[in-house]
Amino acid sequence: MKKSVVLYGDLLERLSPPGLEKLVQANRYEVRFTGGEANVGVSCVNYGMDAYVVGRVPKHEIGQACINYLRQYGLDTTYVARGGERLAILYTETGHSQRPSKVIYDRNHTSFSGIVPGMLDWDEILEGKDWLHFTGTAPAMGEGPREELLRGLKIAKRMGISVSVDYNYRRKLWDRESARKTMETLMEYVDVGIGNEEDCEAVFGIKAEGTDFEKGNVDEKSYSIVAGKMIEKYGLKMQAITLRESISASRNGWSAILHDGRKCYTSRNYLVDLVDRIGGGDSFAGGLIYGLCSGMEKQSALDFAVAASCIKQTIPGDFNLASKEDVLALVNGDASGRVQR
Amino acid sequence: MKKSVVLYGDLLERLSPPGLEKLVQANRYEVRFTGGEANVGVSCVNYGMDAYVVGRVPKHEIGQACINYLRQYGLDTTYVARGGERLAILYTETGHSQRPSKVIYDRNHTSFSGIVPGMLDWDEILEGKDWLHFTGTAPAMGEGPREELLRGLKIAKRMGISVSVDYNYRRKLWDRESARKTMETLMEYVDVGIGNEEDCEAVFGIKAEGTDFEKGNVDEKSYSIVAGKMIEKYGLKMQAITLRESISASRNGWSAILHDGRKCYTSRNYLVDLVDRIGGGDSFAGGLIYGLCSGMEKQSALDFAVAASCIKQTIPGDFNLASKEDVLALVNGDASGRVQR
Amino acid sequence: MKKSVVLYGDLLERLSPPGLEKLVQANRYEVRFTGGEANVGVSCVNYGMDAYVVGRVPKHEIGQACINYLRQYGLDTTYVARGGERLAILYTETGHSQRPSKVIYDRNHTSFSGIVPGMLDWDEILEGKDWLHFTGTAPAMGEGPREELLRGLKIAKRMGISVSVDYNYRRKLWDRESARKTMETLMEYVDVGIGNEEDCEAVFGIKAEGTDFEKGNVDEKSYSIVAGKMIEKYGLKMQAITLRESISASRNGWSAILHDGRKCYTSRNYLVDLVDRIGGGDSFAGGLIYGLCSGMEKQSALDFAVAASCIKQTIPGDFNLASKEDVLALVNGDASGRVQR
Amino acid sequence: MKKSVVLYGDLLERLSPPGLEKLVQANRYEVRFTGGEANVGVSCVNYGMDAYVVGRVPKHEIGQACINYLRQYGLDTTYVARGGERLAILYTETGHSQRPSKVIYDRNHTSFSGIVPGMLDWDEILEGKDWLHFTGTAPAMGEGPREELLRGLKIAKRMGISVSVDYNYRRKLWDRESARKTMETLMEYVDVGIGNEEDCEAVFGIKAEGTDFEKGNVDEKSYSIVAGKMIEKYGLKMQAITLRESISASRNGWSAILHDGRKCYTSRNYLVDLVDRIGGGDSFAGGLIYGLCSGMEKQSALDFAVAASCIKQTIPGDFNLASKEDVLALVNGDASGRVQR
Amino acid sequence: MKKSVVLYGDLLERLSPPGLEKLVQANRYEVRFTGGEANVGVSCVNYGMDAYVVGRVPKHEIGQACINYLRQYGLDTTYVARGGERLAILYTETGHSQRPSKVIYDRNHTSFSGIVPGMLDWDEILEGKDWLHFTGTAPAMGEGPREELLRGLKIAKRMGISVSVDYNYRRKLWDRESARKTMETLMEYVDVGIGNEEDCEAVFGIKAEGTDFEKGNVDEKSYSIVAGKMIEKYGLKMQAITLRESISASRNGWSAILHDGRKCYTSRNYLVDLVDRIGGGDSFAGGLIYGLCSGMEKQSALDFAVAASCIKQTIPGDFNLASKEDVLALVNGDASGRVQR
Amino acid sequence: MKKSVVLYGDLLERLSPPGLEKLVQANRYEVRFTGGEANVGVSCVNYGMDAYVVGRVPKHEIGQACINYLRQYGLDTTYVARGGERLAILYTETGHSQRPSKVIYDRNHTSFSGIVPGMLDWDEILEGKDWLHFTGTAPAMGEGPREELLRGLKIAKRMGISVSVDYNYRRKLWDRESARKTMETLMEYVDVGIGNEEDCEAVFGIKAEGTDFEKGNVDEKSYSIVAGKMIEKYGLKMQAITLRESISASRNGWSAILHDGRKCYTSRNYLVDLVDRIGGGDSFAGGLIYGLCSGMEKQSALDFAVAASCIKQTIPGDFNLASKEDVLALVNGDASGRVQR
Repeated sequence: MKKSVVLYGDLLERLSPPGLEKLVQANRYEVRFTGGEANVGVSCVNYGMDAYVVGRVPKHEIGQACINYLRQYGLDTTYVARGGERLAILYTETGHSQRPSKVIYDRNHTSFSGIVPGMLDWDEILEGKDWLHFTGTAPAMGEGPREELLRGLKIAKRMGISVSVDYNYRRKLWDRESARKTMETLMEYVDVGIGNEEDCEAVFGIKAEGTDFEKGNVDEKSYSIVAGKMIEKYGLKMQAITLRESISASRNGWSAILHDGRKCYTSRNYLVDLVDRIGGGDSFAGGLIYGLCSGMEKQSALDFAVAASCIKQTIPGDFNLASKEDVLALVNGDASGRVQR
Repeated sequence: MKKSVVLYGDLLERLSPPGLEKLVQANRYEVRFTGGEANVGVSCVNYGMDAYVVGRVPKHEIGQACINYLRQYGLDTTYVARGGERLAILYTETGHSQRPSKVIYDRNHTSFSGIVPGMLDWDEILEGKDWLHFTGTAPAMGEGPREELLRGLKIAKRMGISVSVDYNYRRKLWDRESARKTMETLMEYVDVGIGNEEDCEAVFGIKAEGTDFEKGNVDEKSYSIVAGKMIEKYGLKMQAITLRESISASRNGWSAILHDGRKCYTSRNYLVDLVDRIGGGDSFAGGLIYGLCSGMEKQSALDFAVAASCIKQTIPGDFNLASKEDVLALVNGDASGRVQR
Repeated sequence: MKKSVVLYGDLLERLSPPGLEKLVQANRYEVRFTGGEANVGVSCVNYGMDAYVVGRVPKHEIGQACINYLRQYGLDTTYVARGGERLAILYTETGHSQRPSKVIYDRNHTSFSGIVPGMLDWDEILEGKDWLHFTGTAPAMGEGPREELLRGLKIAKRMGISVSVDYNYRRKLWDRESARKTMETLMEYVDVGIGNEEDCEAVFGIKAEGTDFEKGNVDEKSYSIVAGKMIEKYGLKMQAITLRESISASRNGWSAILHDGRKCYTSRNYLVDLVDRIGGGDSFAGGLIYGLCSGMEKQSALDFAVAASCIKQTIPGDFNLASKEDVLALVNGDASGRVQR
Repeated sequence: MKKSVVLYGDLLERLSPPGLEKLVQANRYEVRFTGGEANVGVSCVNYGMDAYVVGRVPKHEIGQACINYLRQYGLDTTYVARGGERLAILYTETGHSQRPSKVIYDRNHTSFSGIVPGMLDWDEILEGKDWLHFTGTAPAMGEGPREELLRGLKIAKRMGISVSVDYNYRRKLWDRESARKTMETLMEYVDVGIGNEEDCEAVFGIKAEGTDFEKGNVDEKSYSIVAGKMIEKYGLKMQAITLRESISASRNGWSAILHDGRKCYTSRNYLVDLVDRIGGGDSFAGGLIYGLCSGMEKQSALDFAVAASCIKQTIPGDFNLASKEDVLALVNGDASGRVQR
Repeated sequence: MKKSVVLYGDLLERLSPPGLEKLVQANRYEVRFTGGEANVGVSCVNYGMDAYVVGRVPKHEIGQACINYLRQYGLDTTYVARGGERLAILYTETGHSQRPSKVIYDRNHTSFSGIVPGMLDWDEILEGKDWLHFTGTAPAMGEGPREELLRGLKIAKRMGISVSVDYNYRRKLWDRESARKTMETLMEYVDVGIGNEEDCEAVFGIKAEGTDFEKGNVDEKSYSIVAGKMIEKYGLKMQAITLRESISASRNGWSAILHDGRKCYTSRNYLVDLVDRIGGGDSFAGGLIYGLCSGMEKQSALDFAVAASCIKQTIPGDFNLASKEDVLALVNGDASGRVQR
Repeated sequence: MKKSVVLYGDLLERLSPPGLEKLVQANRYEVRFTGGEANVGVSCVNYGMDAYVVGRVPKHEIGQACINYLRQYGLDTTYVARGGERLAILYTETGHSQRPSKVIYDRNHTSFSGIVPGMLDWDEILEGKDWLHFTGTAPAMGEGPREELLRGLKIAKRMGISVSVDYNYRRKLWDRESARKTMETLMEYVDVGIGNEEDCEAVFGIKAEGTDFEKGNVDEKSYSIVAGKMIEKYGLKMQAITLRESISASRNGWSAILHDGRKCYTSRNYLVDLVDRIGGGDSFAGGLIYGLCSGMEKQSALDFAVAASCIKQTIPGDFNLASKEDVLALVNGDASGRVQR
């Protein structure tokens, strides 16, 4: 029987100039819809799971376009409420070589931030589901969405549904103190924590000693210790940390670790020529959730998640459109990119 | 010496699907920047005037892109303040035949609406200028921009600068009562009022008897009476009204009247196959301001304004990119569209 | 409770040059997926119904792209089987003025034509549904799909599900004799027949006297008689006929009649400036099915269907993306195309 | 056996903004290659003739791109010399409704204008060919190309090859006096003269009495007299005149007459919704040459030429991509534009 | 005098999403026409040879578009027969980094596969030509094209025309046994065999010991032995093998060897950042044929072919659009890519 | 107070195929306007300076489009004269890996080359400005522009304005002797000389011993000696030389030196994955002028200029759209390209 995941979070319209143009020179935008949690859902769908997005978008055509876009990739949008003023906008420009990618947020006053506690029927939404996932940007959107999330987490806990969170710290959304304060109230309900090389320090103040990710120096061992501390402090079952080595804006090292309280698993390190790195972390989470849901060993789940997110970063857009077979081919060692014909 | 016009109003990013696609099916947007007042300014620049835009946009790259777009068409952006949260967005889809064009506003919480009285240095801005123009959407954006406008109007009056307003009623921005209440406080400073076939009734409650513009029935005589009433009630020097006959979404009749308190001038009626009707009214205002500033007779100014706005509606985008020569060729009767080679 | 419709038919990849280019000069194609029955389903979804597409597409990425495209617009693709060799292709170029639109079919050896009887679980598919619709192109695709359709029709009949057919004669798919022979075996199960001004003669040999649609001469009365004969001969509950007056490739008259055995209802005649006429008949069928399912009076259902299909022909692509509100606005007389803002 | 036509004239790179944008707002150009004579050749090829372009383009990649473009549509480019400085450029923007189309020439100092007499091997070029065609723009390009043309005309005459000219007056290239002086020296070798409603007056000073084409008033009878005078004065076998009624920039009446010294044939008048009117006259010439070469009666040849050029004006680009069958379908009365499927 | 090559093989329409998009997310395709043999022909034309494509495409506009596309790049299409049902389609998506490129074939039931022996007039086609080339995909298309090829090979042999084959094994077209069985019947007529690092083993069972091309491990010496065996077994004059080291989907090592029975020549190894690797092998064959035809030494011919195919892989599309001068510049050592200005 | 720079030079329309297509396969061009000096001005504007372009463009719409394009990025176009025949055209194709970029000039007979001495009001133009910059292509355009430049230089000298020149040698514009002869007459007025690794030898015959830039071998020490000689010979205050190591067409090393007569400063060497290298040298000059104008230390000015031009080469188009903050971030060591969010 198909496993199912529920994704709670904001939805955004992503506007990007074509190719490598900068925002300031754009006369056209490519239009995509995204959301840290929805991105995870698309991955899960591609691997054979059911995925239910829970959020809120306006009633007008842009809201509908968002719904349509998610449906296209197989997400179930039954639980996306309609109402409120506007859809969040994410402007992105893709960097290259020494030029960094840029992101402009226009995420306030949105339909999602207008969620008030009780607006969602969590009992119906979670009934019979296997997993609930959210990221740190959801509670960052305001007290309403935060309270509603808390309600959902409690019900999920009661129903025995696994819960994961991607800390996903964004300094343009909230400062570190607000993030920590809020996130700590939610950690009680979390089984699996996911973060990148910056998040654990930024949100929870747990620093990886001897590393300087700004200089591309990320050390697995230090992060293993960080992961262990997270598990201990917040009573997690597992903590995963993705490790990005920023060689340039268009070339990164990519790997991850997974700690289960007893052992820390490490993955292969991929040297990736980036096409679109946005959504990389989400595709890792999607791969990990699938791996854990489908009964893979932890090492295999980690390997699957890292290979999946490696491929994602070579695909335009936020969604990982790789199939399970595509990911397994990379896991099994074929990184040569020979034409499949 | 060049005449100059100051334009006070909101600036927007206009996002449109290519061609005749609907918003709900768009995967690309054409990106343009616009504003009812900025549109007027572009017309004036094309006819040889100087035009100064007064408004406010964010400091980030989208704000800069807006500035750049306006500069491209010769607007002086020295007085566009930088700051605030976001730029307004206008989603548009172009209708055709029986399918109406649609507009979605995402205009709240913008940099412009965050203007607070005193933010602008009206004395410097207006020094040596000939004309000040605004539309009804500017005071609709909030109390701050409304108060700042009022300050500017008073200073303009004191300096002897001519003031025009395009009533430009938008029911998605405010209701009729709010509009009337606000607009009536501003009319005291206005010399030339401009409206379309709906505005005088919607904003000021002055109805054209025996007309039903929803059915494309617009009668010059009735509107002449309306114009006369407006002049009398608000002490205007002139009142112009554009008259649109909506045959279909892609074919309109287009004409206008101009009343000066003594006489009502009427224009030729153009049957226009529309390319982009947005900005049609603004290009009329631009033509009229230019005509009046440059010393044309009233009939000539009206004819110029109507021909100008006829051409505008055959050009993609909100700006009228026709030159004075282009407009005069149409005024002088060459509507045959023969190739110029 | 939501009404539901089941759509049985072939699915195609539609490839079109941008704008008004001819196929022979194209260096890019716009890619859409379509199908006479799927198009009907999209209309029904937009009006609030559930719509289930039944067909077959290859397992590869092009098949998946087709699934995704249908999902995007809300179609339920659960019953689209995966397998077979290839997806049908439809090349189209859009004519204008005196230049006719053209269509090239590449529809043989497809996954759909490879359907063999028993491949579909009709009992599950039809369980609890309200309506089954197909068009004449489905049985034209081969004996397998024809037999499977017959199986479905019998089960639908047994379950008391309403059945409609759009005769949809395509001479590039089969000759008139084959069409008649096949279609007559299916008519026994049909409740509502739908055709255009050519179909009843082409498929069933029932000619509208005194009309010559090639010359744009279509007479409602003659077609009323045709409809009456169809009802009588095949025991239909209703027969609808759309009437297209081809003024030019880009301008058509558009109306329809609906006969219920006792009375023949006629619609308003719209003069349409065409954007994309492909899918016009399907959007009529979609509107009619919705109208009849939702309990409208016959005149209202006909009016809704004609207005809906009028709007469709102003929208790029095969799908009618108009909402119920959009259609009702036109039914209620607002054909002026004024901007909705 | 295939008939063949030789086309002597300049070749140009045509740069056009997409859709209905003006040049001043373009950030992309569509790139096509053209030439009044090459356009004629493409028509002839489409009807089954061989067509040889004679001209000169630079050796660099833009010259090669021009060659490639012509080859694509079946023109034989063996006799296009390579050398010289630059390829001519033609900027075009497409008008609509009251907005006229515009053309900017950048045609000086080109490879073609650098032709010097003797550069072409006319004996080889003309050997075994049936027809030689040029337009007035070829001798307008300078003394070298003019002299070389004269050489070719003499050899063609000697070989008994039919010669046609499209007067094709362009005031941006030369004034009326220069044109007349030059053209009169060439008329001695011409069998068939072709002009539009302006050319005979502009070049040869033969005015159609009582007409004012600027106002769309073109009278067949007056032009019949003009044609007769042309034949008499210059010893032509035939004179054809196309008659364009400019209703607007996007809607024209289109017809033509053909005088053979004894009788003046007149064509049907098509009301054309224009897509791209550039190349309209060339496609008329192409249709006429084909008709006369292939042994049609004069009325049929005229009808073919007018129908062909009617269709051309509904196709983007300068080339008429209609087939003989397409043209004959329109000649035979099917102007309804029904989809061909 | 110009040397000439005859190319026998299938022609395909290649549909590709723009840039690095995956097929499943494409809403536009770039349209190109291709064919393993036609690709070779374009190379030869660019170096100054005549190239005649022999194949079969449908009569409709897509077939014509294919013809036009080939003509554009100078191929002679006189011997492309017209008829049959459909043109083959090749969907491609371009991989990057760890994501492999993908190809979907829709190549059955095509006009080419419908060739029946005797359909082509080989005597006329081959008369006076210097070289005949085909690839393994031509006989893979069915018995008809296979038999017709055999007829042509025999006539070529009789006329003393050199014959080359690119083995070009595609497992999606046929299995290894079928390929071997068929290809062995054709080898009798072959002078020059060309393969990549997989072909000799896949088709003829001759494995390069100690290499594992899936891991990017290709050893020149092993392949030299393979080439020697091929020459011996099939009585070839020469055997060339291209060696691709797949570092990633966007970065490859590229080199080749050429064995003449006595000596094995090896080329420089280029590290290529790939733009479009499809057509790489064909451009090698084109370079080699040109080199051998034009009297180069074997080492020079090999160097030319490898440099040519290196450049090809940096050009979008299947055709190598590099000139002889471009190739020689690289052969002579300028791989720095300095701007040519 | 804002510093200001005056830029004297030709303006061009740059036409480029999209992405990595070659010119010979382009059916669309991206349209940009450029000019070696204007490019410098855009950089200066981005860093907060005022920049005045001095040149000449035609009166028609293409000239206006050029003006608009420059205004968009903040250049002051008051001193761009209008008149003359045509705007220069620059066709570019972007190379990749072993395939070099290509440039085709169509720069003769332009409006700029038609400048005659006295046409410009240098006194007004230079009044109150801080810096005058030109490149070697300006005097290469003909005697008129050369004389007018000389006039300007003398006035600048008189006014005490700093003068810089980028030697910018282009062999397609003039030969080395002409260049040297002309440039030497201008050097008398120059304060700061700027060149690339080729220029000093090409224009002034001062060779860097032991280097071979064609092979990517550029040695800082040799160039330091060259710079010293330049300073001595021409009495410069400073000489800067950019050093490009052409690893491939898409990957370069990039650094520079700055000599002030006493000391030679050297910069960091960036390994750049190129997006668009055209304008790289101009952006160096722009950075250097800004640095020197704004009072940076020489080492800092050099570092700023090199970082700026490194970033430029990752941005499509000729203009460096990086802000001062963007450049400083790179100077300060963040070359990791981490997303800014």
